[in-house]
Amino acid sequence: MGCSSALPHILCFDVPLAEKALIACIRRQAAKGGGILAGIGDDCAVLPLPPRHEALVTTDFSLEGIHFRRGWHPAESVGHRCLTRGLSDIAATGGQPQAVFLSLALPRNLPQAWVDGFLRGLLKLARRFGVGLAGGDTAESPGGVLADIVVLGSVPKGKAILRSGARPGDQVYVSGELGGSAAILRRMMEKSKRKLKPVDYPRHFFPEPRVQLGRILREKGLASAMIDISDGLSTDLAHICEESGAGAEVQAEAIPLALIGKPGHEVDLGFALHGGEDYELLFTAPGGKSIPTYIAGVPITLIGQITRGRKIVLRNANGVGREFRPQGWEHFK
Amino acid sequence: MGCSSALPHILCFDVPLAEKALIACIRRQAAKGGGILAGIGDDCAVLPLPPRHEALVTTDFSLEGIHFRRGWHPAESVGHRCLTRGLSDIAATGGQPQAVFLSLALPRNLPQAWVDGFLRGLLKLARRFGVGLAGGDTAESPGGVLADIVVLGSVPKGKAILRSGARPGDQVYVSGELGGSAAILRRMMEKSKRKLKPVDYPRHFFPEPRVQLGRILREKGLASAMIDISDGLSTDLAHICEESGAGAEVQAEAIPLALIGKPGHEVDLGFALHGGEDYELLFTAPGGKSIPTYIAGVPITLIGQITRGRKIVLRNANGVGREFRPQGWEHFK
Repeated sequence: MGCSSALPHILCFDVPLAEKALIACIRRQAAKGGGILAGIGDDCAVLPLPPRHEALVTTDFSLEGIHFRRGWHPAESVGHRCLTRGLSDIAATGGQPQAVFLSLALPRNLPQAWVDGFLRGLLKLARRFGVGLAGGDTAESPGGVLADIVVLGSVPKGKAILRSGARPGDQVYVSGELGGSAAILRRMMEKSKRKLKPVDYPRHFFPEPRVQLGRILREKGLASAMIDISDGLSTDLAHICEESGAGAEVQAEAIPLALIGKPGHEVDLGFALHGGEDYELLFTAPGGKSIPTYIAGVPITLIGQITRGRKIVLRNANGVGREFRPQGWEHFK
Repeated sequence: MGCSSALPHILCFDVPLAEKALIACIRRQAAKGGGILAGIGDDCAVLPLPPRHEALVTTDFSLEGIHFRRGWHPAESVGHRCLTRGLSDIAATGGQPQAVFLSLALPRNLPQAWVDGFLRGLLKLARRFGVGLAGGDTAESPGGVLADIVVLGSVPKGKAILRSGARPGDQVYVSGELGGSAAILRRMMEKSKRKLKPVDYPRHFFPEPRVQLGRILREKGLASAMIDISDGLSTDLAHICEESGAGAEVQAEAIPLALIGKPGHEVDLGFALHGGEDYELLFTAPGGKSIPTYIAGVPITLIGQITRGRKIVLRNANGVGREFRPQGWEHFK
């Protein structure tokens, strides 16, 4: 916000129309929620945090050609997915989102309708979670649409759920179902079927950040470690194991597979093991803890255990184990 | 930080080497200052704020081809300038920087040496201001280098200096000298002289965020409104007037002109009136306040007054006034 929370740094001779309209639109639409004391139109946003809380900060790129394609993803979906990435990180620490900041660089020829749709998708999700757009930055993009979303959240002092808290003997749980987003992306990549109806494929186009679930797990002291599944189960479980200095064993047949499309079709296991952008929560809990099968309306499934050592093993229905290597997630490969 | 504070979302099949090295480099180099409780390697950074303080958040793009050129700006300068933008916004509210977050998208073919230089420039400045790199995001860039810097700061409750606090009768002050950065950029744009020695032109390549000055103005209750000069005096004064619902009158001959190069050469008034990226502070103070001529080693100059109405007038040495219109700052036009 060198110029102002949402005014461009490349004022004013020749600012693209889309950018001028964007600023006006953001100022008009930005919800004044979340106790924002000064927001768009100042050098910094000024925000109170609840007493005895710590600040949570997360930043996530959404880059055209890397994280989305304008030909495949409607603008509202891009805006929704952009904010989901940030809210999901807040969820994964058990925190409460407080305010959103959007840095948005737009190519000169971008239709205004696209910007409107993007903001509509983003702000609709923000309103549902009671967070205001408190600032950000705008610029002309030298290439495609470039968005960077920042979410400021809060969590009671010392209560953030980290990746590093898993201990041998802990159980491994996952929320919802996995593999839906990646399987839908694959379906889009099959040339003839690129144009999918977003409303039929919400797991990819409008994924749900699990903010309430994360908060309940923290409030009830159920989770010892947590992460959101943005890069795929194999990669995100490896992050927990790495940060916790432990290994894990996962039962392949326990992994809940997403249904996609209409009529619903169960995704292949590969998508559930390695596909990204499901934004479900992966967490561990000490063996003695009783975990409900549903929390905040979301099914919770036991899929494995944390082990000593550093190996992560995937065991099939016959009990045969193989190493479960991280095979992260590249959006368009 | 969907994947982790600084791990890529486009793991892991085919992550460009520069990106892998970047993550390792950030994790290694990131200063563990500023009381960061969890940082790189978690979904969110967790940060304590001082009691009875509010959070300040600012985000600023630094985009190749828009804010810098790799052919003109050494990597260290790009990293330094990137962070200066954020620190300067914190300075302009009288706040204290707490932590830095860097979202960085790199083209596949970017030399590792460039990334090293960029981080060296950024982290050197961060260390000088006692702030740690607490997280961010990395991705492959579809175009040039794309950086978005986020600075989290804090300010005692209710004490942030906003743009909206100027009142008719207030005096208008500016720190340091103006026009240096833009005049140097113009010199670079004259083809034959593109390669300037950065060490001889620090006002453009290594500008100084006025954090200490901003904090002293806030602590001593001297400033009624404040902004940093990132878009040029004419544009940034217009922001103060707009947010404060007031006008202003500026004495042209009072404006302190920067000296650039060796031997020093005074810039033309036009650069001081409209050139951006000086990162000096522009502030107002009630008429009764006595403002020192130096604060934190930086000269402070009275350049005008806040007036009733909404007009901004520039008055020359003969007392003749003309409307002083914002003529913002486009980096490479």
